[in-house]
Amino acid sequence: MKIAILGGTGSIGQGLAVRWALNHDIIIGSRQCEKAESAANEYTNVLKKFDMACNISGCINPDAVGQADVVVLSVPYEHVISTIESIQADLKDQIVVSIVVPMKKDGYFKYDQPAAGSAAMVIKSALPESVKLVSAFHSVSAKKLCKIKEKLDMDVFICGDDEHANQVVCDLVREIPKLRPLIAGPLEASSMLESLTPLLINLAVFNKIKHLGIKCE
Amino acid sequence: MKIAILGGTGSIGQGLAVRWALNHDIIIGSRQCEKAESAANEYTNVLKKFDMACNISGCINPDAVGQADVVVLSVPYEHVISTIESIQADLKDQIVVSIVVPMKKDGYFKYDQPAAGSAAMVIKSALPESVKLVSAFHSVSAKKLCKIKEKLDMDVFICGDDEHANQVVCDLVREIPKLRPLIAGPLEASSMLESLTPLLINLAVFNKIKHLGIKCE
Repeated sequence: MKIAILGGTGSIGQGLAVRWALNHDIIIGSRQCEKAESAANEYTNVLKKFDMACNISGCINPDAVGQADVVVLSVPYEHVISTIESIQADLKDQIVVSIVVPMKKDGYFKYDQPAAGSAAMVIKSALPESVKLVSAFHSVSAKKLCKIKEKLDMDVFICGDDEHANQVVCDLVREIPKLRPLIAGPLEASSMLESLTPLLINLAVFNKIKHLGIKCE
Repeated sequence: MKIAILGGTGSIGQGLAVRWALNHDIIIGSRQCEKAESAANEYTNVLKKFDMACNISGCINPDAVGQADVVVLSVPYEHVISTIESIQADLKDQIVVSIVVPMKKDGYFKYDQPAAGSAAMVIKSALPESVKLVSAFHSVSAKKLCKIKEKLDMDVFICGDDEHANQVVCDLVREIPKLRPLIAGPLEASSMLESLTPLLINLAVFNKIKHLGIKCE
């Protein structure tokens, strides 16, 4: 498959890129082409060090989306609507995966719940109906994902309304060693996933433990 | 210590009672004295089967609270305010632990967030200021807690504003083998803990896995 990762220059984007590059063509998207190309080169070099072949390219967001089967939205919440506007003409029937979390800091990290219920519901209303939206990867450690040899004994929670799209994302999760996909409900249930990100940051800060993820026992 | 468990006839109440009864006096509270006494007898018999001595009694909620150092609120959200009203005269400087979660079911389980932000914030406004409130135990499997010999390799997330009260609850968590207490922020952050309960129920239902808890990795 061809997977576009928008906001692919951030650490969770990098982690997904280097993990999925073993089986798929990865297109890093950014608002600036040079930044995307530079990130693509960097990730390619990371994999080369482990003698792993890959096809990672970089370009501006609309070009990345136009080529892709799966589009990962890994941009800050403040930029998500402008990002979707910029790719609107290139969205057809792709599967879009939202990792987006609205957060604010006020002594601790808070989930800044949008009036629509979640970032996912805001994003859904901005996407064409032909696109299938899935919410996932809110509780996976980006740092551990980036370490290509590290096995993540964690769960990935998935919310979505389209059975096929959910299964495509489940399969992408299973490609990463020891990650387990778990369905958490329809897209509307996404706020329960999105609020895991600030929870994990708080747990890390208050208990001085780094790079936490969640495993259900 | 003397620990009163209000709503102690439910499964999470039972689990905490049989675990803490090894080190503390447990008072099961209920609106009906007979129900509390019957539960106390039942839990005592469970421990007797394992040759474990304990002191578990049962009485109406106000009597339970009047004797207690720690009061666990383990009642349904709909009953929490009337329960607090009934014990108001018996609350002095106890530590109150809220396990309360407002939930509704509509195809899946939803966190039914109160306007005040969380059940904990609603409860705080109903309690006298002299009482210290801690929010905890929202993601622990009640069924596993009830199985006295089962080691729970799980985390207990704790929100609270009083350092001493938080530490008392942390110590109570550590008394249960393999349970790890993790501070998740001030009481105001409790919504991020409370929403874990419906999330775990959904994960159990949609993935056909029973009695889930959370471990951070």
